[in-house]
Amino acid sequence: MIFDRFTALDAIGPYEVLSRLPGAELSFVAKEAGPKRSDTGALGVSADLPIAELPDPEIVLVPGGEGNRPLLSDDRVLEWLRSAHETSVWTTSVCTGSLVLGAAGILDRKRATSHWVYLEGLRSFGAEPVDARVVEDGKVMTAAGVSSGIDMALTLAARVAGDQVARAIQLGIEYDPEPPFDAGSPAKAPPELVELVRNLEREPAPSRRA
Amino acid sequence: MIFDRFTALDAIGPYEVLSRLPGAELSFVAKEAGPKRSDTGALGVSADLPIAELPDPEIVLVPGGEGNRPLLSDDRVLEWLRSAHETSVWTTSVCTGSLVLGAAGILDRKRATSHWVYLEGLRSFGAEPVDARVVEDGKVMTAAGVSSGIDMALTLAARVAGDQVARAIQLGIEYDPEPPFDAGSPAKAPPELVELVRNLEREPAPSRRA
Repeated sequence: MIFDRFTALDAIGPYEVLSRLPGAELSFVAKEAGPKRSDTGALGVSADLPIAELPDPEIVLVPGGEGNRPLLSDDRVLEWLRSAHETSVWTTSVCTGSLVLGAAGILDRKRATSHWVYLEGLRSFGAEPVDARVVEDGKVMTAAGVSSGIDMALTLAARVAGDQVARAIQLGIEYDPEPPFDAGSPAKAPPELVELVRNLEREPAPSRRA
Repeated sequence: MIFDRFTALDAIGPYEVLSRLPGAELSFVAKEAGPKRSDTGALGVSADLPIAELPDPEIVLVPGGEGNRPLLSDDRVLEWLRSAHETSVWTTSVCTGSLVLGAAGILDRKRATSHWVYLEGLRSFGAEPVDARVVEDGKVMTAAGVSSGIDMALTLAARVAGDQVARAIQLGIEYDPEPPFDAGSPAKAPPELVELVRNLEREPAPSRRA
């Protein structure tokens, strides 16, 4: 499910993995169908269906992005999520998408994760924040910030179709990461960089991006 | 530059990184502006400008995807690429996007890379194939398959804006990868899986995806 000012990679990383599952049918949906822009503005993605036309997906995925904050109090979206969660095989999120799951009541007494800047915020929804890249609790799977959606989707592919299919997808997308720096988590980056990025992520729009 | 049947993550991985460069202006362009679909079909992205309206980008990026094969003999696209390359600061590709750079003559006597299934094909354009995730030769930077565009874009961000900015972007997108399997390159995956994926990637449409 996307929305205006979503974080592109939160949605497209998992899309690239899950769309390669044999027989998978994926749809980008939104409260209202039509074009949605990413949070950094230059990407326009089509939501091909309104959520009302896809009441019972087997896998639900909510990405992050500053544009999801209004959804935290959007009854129509939260009701759709609660209802979809009743029949889903997996209910998932990437980055601050977990805040939306939380607002829908789906994370109550669940272990869950989010972008590191927002992780503690999960407590307000009754969730237990877990500092991990991918967290599973029952049929709820949540990923940490942005790029972690790729790791989550490979984990999900393995649960849905088996390890060998997940490995084939990993090889197909040549996912053998070699980041040029070792600064991808607050535990590894120097403290001053952590503070800088924390402040950047919490800035008001248009530069807030978590 | 996108096109119908492009590989989504090839384009969006780098987009997520480069759009966070301070002051960056990004545009999705295509031979003709308008909606383009990804190779696995369910994603529609808007090409906001025709290439004719963006003759001199500082950074050019060509993604992969089976839909780029017709571009290998498309004079208007190849002429645009050659001309853009004359004034660009960086000319780049992800996955089989390097075949398009090759067809434009940009890889002649250059070291370059591509998706592992297509790597040797670079020789036909006078390039020297290099089995590496990111390859720089002068102002030409090429990435291996699909997900490697994220590593390339962080490398590029460092060249353009310095290591500290690149590290801040890496921390912002929480790029501290933990693939659930170790099968992301042909050197690491078992031989039978390598053969399976090689055949899948080389299948005719609609299931060919490299």
